[in-house]
Amino acid sequence: MAVLVKTNRRVTLAARPVGFPKASDFAFDEVEVGEPGPGEVLVRTLWVSVDPYQRSRMSEARSYAKSLELGDVITSQSIGEVIESHDGRYSPGDLVVGQLGWQEYAVARAGSVRRVPELLDPPTLALHVVGATGMTAYFGLLDVGRPKPGDTVVVSGAAGAVGQVAGQIAKLAGCRTVGIAGGPDKCTDCASYGYDVALDYKDKGFREALKSACAEGVDVYFDNVGGELSGAVHRRLNVGARIVVCGQVSQYNLERPEPTFHPALMIVFRARMEGFLVSDYAHRFDEAAQRLARWVAEGKIRWREDVTVGLENAPAAFMGMLQGENRGKALVKVADHRS
Amino acid sequence: MAVLVKTNRRVTLAARPVGFPKASDFAFDEVEVGEPGPGEVLVRTLWVSVDPYQRSRMSEARSYAKSLELGDVITSQSIGEVIESHDGRYSPGDLVVGQLGWQEYAVARAGSVRRVPELLDPPTLALHVVGATGMTAYFGLLDVGRPKPGDTVVVSGAAGAVGQVAGQIAKLAGCRTVGIAGGPDKCTDCASYGYDVALDYKDKGFREALKSACAEGVDVYFDNVGGELSGAVHRRLNVGARIVVCGQVSQYNLERPEPTFHPALMIVFRARMEGFLVSDYAHRFDEAAQRLARWVAEGKIRWREDVTVGLENAPAAFMGMLQGENRGKALVKVADHRS
Repeated sequence: MAVLVKTNRRVTLAARPVGFPKASDFAFDEVEVGEPGPGEVLVRTLWVSVDPYQRSRMSEARSYAKSLELGDVITSQSIGEVIESHDGRYSPGDLVVGQLGWQEYAVARAGSVRRVPELLDPPTLALHVVGATGMTAYFGLLDVGRPKPGDTVVVSGAAGAVGQVAGQIAKLAGCRTVGIAGGPDKCTDCASYGYDVALDYKDKGFREALKSACAEGVDVYFDNVGGELSGAVHRRLNVGARIVVCGQVSQYNLERPEPTFHPALMIVFRARMEGFLVSDYAHRFDEAAQRLARWVAEGKIRWREDVTVGLENAPAAFMGMLQGENRGKALVKVADHRS
Repeated sequence: MAVLVKTNRRVTLAARPVGFPKASDFAFDEVEVGEPGPGEVLVRTLWVSVDPYQRSRMSEARSYAKSLELGDVITSQSIGEVIESHDGRYSPGDLVVGQLGWQEYAVARAGSVRRVPELLDPPTLALHVVGATGMTAYFGLLDVGRPKPGDTVVVSGAAGAVGQVAGQIAKLAGCRTVGIAGGPDKCTDCASYGYDVALDYKDKGFREALKSACAEGVDVYFDNVGGELSGAVHRRLNVGARIVVCGQVSQYNLERPEPTFHPALMIVFRARMEGFLVSDYAHRFDEAAQRLARWVAEGKIRWREDVTVGLENAPAAFMGMLQGENRGKALVKVADHRS
């Protein structure tokens, strides 16, 4: 099959952000579309994802993954259609998801992408509930948090892409759920995700409201946010509580994050705090994807997307997400599916 | 059997310490020796224990155990001889250990004390290696830390009562051990406890020395101390590391302890931080005591006692211990065994 397109527009890292990222930290360039070799596919991007972890990749600080270099394409899970395949597993027109970056075209090893299941409606679910964020919620809550029916589960970033799924899985596991989010709109979203209580951490009565919402203490704290807000939750732990450290988005844009936690609390509450990466559970992605897809199909997991149109607007969508402006999973639509 | 003694000298809490405790926070009084009722024993104290956790009991801050009230006898594990028994399990002359406090005589329920095994030589081992501190090391290291052969295990407070045992159990488990202690004398003690490396955190080259001692990273951090010293260890964790929060003695005398930990590290290292209390393992005390006693008898666990003579000197021993002046397990000898 002849590929007529020659130009690949990309969003790259122009400068390492200091504090909150700004427009000049990103650059746009155009390069020739690469040629897929044996075992590779050429993918045309339809959707790219916008997630807090991308902020960490822009820093030089030691983390679990290699930092981006200046000039690198911004890391992202993306959905695209195969337009040229040199591997028996894929044919032109197939919809795939993988770590393809913020760019219009990507050459990828066939083994590094997954097929978007045809039953997934809409297919963008593969970028959230039935993708990385949903699986992050699934493994983080169930394997790290180990909730029991009757537990009180508190979720910070409760209306965010991971939080909304974590809260709903906790309900499926028989727990009482308390969602913490920023602002009344997101608290309204929390209600639609089935949280028993939604608390606005920007409200000045937050600490009192948290206390009364967790009158029986907190058994699992699924933490996406960190910082002061989390300090308030830590004081309400039950003996034997589990703190799932999924994200610390309040800290990602600080130049010198200060410590936020008192380890002595672990003794007082005989508690456990544990971090994880969804990639550590790669051998169980099928298990999670099948269950999450079924729960969505059965209406047991609801979701919301916050869509920005145009690859050129990806940096703005990203900066807005870090400021908490999105409602639901932040996505950027890059192109329509032609097949 | 007639009890001739009428007076019980006690050490009580006179004031809640602000910062480091001072002599005037303690009072001495004399009361009549109590009369044991049915199922109770009257015990004459021979040895009392001096431990960091006692500092927490003197504060009003919420903790895992009830605070002392002003005027209460200072909480302590003690060894004593039964001088009157109203329970079939004990006879006069029996040596028992229990939570009897800093006082010359105590009336206790027979079920609340344990017999000091006759084979224990010296019997004071029941107050440390084969008692609360040894069991704290045993369950904290093995059940919470879950060391594997080949792991690098770092212990803070490495020459202290709990730390010295934790380091030696880690060696028995096939680990490489790095002990952190304050000052050259305690580092010398660490060598006698078999640590592969001993580091003085007061030395200005500490961070560099830690880095080279943990060139392959830290798999288990058994933390008795907390604070800045622990921050240095946290930066050297391996993926999958376990932080056992046993104590945070650097924090106990601060009026307003500041947070010391970045939860984001848990994500970077997919690490686990967990607190525990030895009392949660009461159902397995026999297991631990038997193994610890055997390891002592076989010379596999070495120990050191720091003995102060005279109940009236217990507050001074306690204050010195909090300043790190003791070498080995701090004990106060109250009286000789007469039987």
